[in-house]
Amino acid sequence: PALAQPPVLIPAPLPSWNEGPNRQAILDFVARVTREGGPDFVPPNERIATFDNDGTLWAENPMYFQGLFAFARAHELASKDPVLAQREPFKSILAGDQAAIAKFGEHEIAALMAATHAGMTTEEFNAIVRRWTETAIHPRFQRRYVELVYQPMLELLAYLRANGFKTFIVSGGGVDFMRVFAESAYGIPPEQVIGSSGKTKFEIRDGRAVLIKQADIGSIDDKEGKPVNIDLHIGRRPTAAFGNSDGDLAMLQYAAGGPGARLMLIVHHDDAEREYAYDRQSHVGRLDKALDEATQRNWVVVSMKRDWRTVFPAR
Amino acid sequence: PALAQPPVLIPAPLPSWNEGPNRQAILDFVARVTREGGPDFVPPNERIATFDNDGTLWAENPMYFQGLFAFARAHELASKDPVLAQREPFKSILAGDQAAIAKFGEHEIAALMAATHAGMTTEEFNAIVRRWTETAIHPRFQRRYVELVYQPMLELLAYLRANGFKTFIVSGGGVDFMRVFAESAYGIPPEQVIGSSGKTKFEIRDGRAVLIKQADIGSIDDKEGKPVNIDLHIGRRPTAAFGNSDGDLAMLQYAAGGPGARLMLIVHHDDAEREYAYDRQSHVGRLDKALDEATQRNWVVVSMKRDWRTVFPAR
Ligand SMILES: [Ca+2]
Ligand SMILES: [Ca+2]
Repeated sequence: PALAQPPVLIPAPLPSWNEGPNRQAILDFVARVTREGGPDFVPPNERIATFDNDGTLWAENPMYFQGLFAFARAHELASKDPVLAQREPFKSILAGDQAAIAKFGEHEIAALMAATHAGMTTEEFNAIVRRWTETAIHPRFQRRYVELVYQPMLELLAYLRANGFKTFIVSGGGVDFMRVFAESAYGIPPEQVIGSSGKTKFEIRDGRAVLIKQADIGSIDDKEGKPVNIDLHIGRRPTAAFGNSDGDLAMLQYAAGGPGARLMLIVHHDDAEREYAYDRQSHVGRLDKALDEATQRNWVVVSMKRDWRTVFPAR
Repeated sequence: PALAQPPVLIPAPLPSWNEGPNRQAILDFVARVTREGGPDFVPPNERIATFDNDGTLWAENPMYFQGLFAFARAHELASKDPVLAQREPFKSILAGDQAAIAKFGEHEIAALMAATHAGMTTEEFNAIVRRWTETAIHPRFQRRYVELVYQPMLELLAYLRANGFKTFIVSGGGVDFMRVFAESAYGIPPEQVIGSSGKTKFEIRDGRAVLIKQADIGSIDDKEGKPVNIDLHIGRRPTAAFGNSDGDLAMLQYAAGGPGARLMLIVHHDDAEREYAYDRQSHVGRLDKALDEATQRNWVVVSMKRDWRTVFPAR
């Protein structure tokens, strides 16, 4: 005979996560660090959680979405500029020559980035990215890219914030690119977004102070660059860190290196049906060394297929 | 005949500020940007206020306090190391040879900074700075340096935060040096402190991830470097900016370059009796071009002597 259920007063946290050891590990960690007087209590001002973006908070196939933005923008520029249209890499992009595009090397990528990510004010760049996020559509899912964020990770962000955590993005993606949508997509304000960056130059234009984006690289926020930038921007070790690839290993190690309870979590893409399946051999988001270390050190390795009830938000 | 006064229910803001146009300009600005539906309303997430530190939030004489820290630390290191004690610049520092010290050039300063600010983990450096803040005493005021913060500016920080502003330090001082005391002294957490920085190197030591401070300079957060770093770290234009020298001019111009109501404020040190008096000719905190531009553009120029009822907090 069925027992009477007690009334549910508070919605259960992480509703898109299936019950199991991984969801439980998250709940246990949060319970430990928030229990006042407990041995693992962390004061709210020290509750820092850092999240990789591509492949951790949103999808990264068929290529990094910022790469798709750069190609779309290059196409737009070349289609309006006959001189540019005759020059590589714009000529191949305009022609949609996939064989040529696949062979792009450092020189072509640098030219592409300079044309699409530099030579304008920061405010002009933001407006261009914003227009792209509002209009560009993912070829497989037929949604806007900002709708290809992971519903379970949105719930995890909200759950951590409800428990006093300050949530940061620490990603190899461009910092100003991500800031355009991070606040509306993830609830993460610009000042909590850390990423790769180009240099900028201060100028007075028509009596008004502006910053002009330069083609020179400032910082690559990947691998060892992640803990270095976490220290530069945040100045505390994260209590919890979330990633999906070898590019996140140093950040996860840095979080693990602090005292007390810590949470290190990797999203493992093993769901070709609902999203994509890739790890050790992938050219994007390669997960190899970090998977071994996670297994060895008992970090949480999330199976997208088994742990996530849904992948993307309902439309 | 005197009118009956209404009962005062809420303590007046900025109690250490004398009434007058400068205090009123602050109150008016905050009223405008917080009035919902008003023409100058700024949503809370966009209320960003940036403060210079040396000479704006705490004193900077007889030299930048971080310089005094470096000398004290060099003295400590040289007194324990006979080899170092025989080498310049440590020999002159150990001997207290003021004439030699006054002649230190780039080479000596670089050696001093390398010995006192590099070659250790970030956590070791923090512990050394913390010990200094707890023990070192200012020669004139006979107080710890962290007690030489400006009471009116503490009230201004608190007043802005009470009105939804996020307060940041944007200073030429070392970011990790300032973070040691910024939270207890100003209520500004490490992730809201922006400053000059050296490079750091990620290493695994005894199985634990650490960052080692390097002697190489990462970023000088002064002059045009201030708006550049504000964009890199915050990603929004400040609505309000506070400084005291020409090193803050670009930051003030950057704040002024945004739309709607803005507050640009300069602390003018004109109080030799209670603090120090210096401006156009000073080697530390020179205020010359920024004073002209502030006058011309009607920015708030605070007279320490006339506008501040008290300078330092009561003991
Ligand atoms: Ca990733
Ligand atoms: Ca200053």
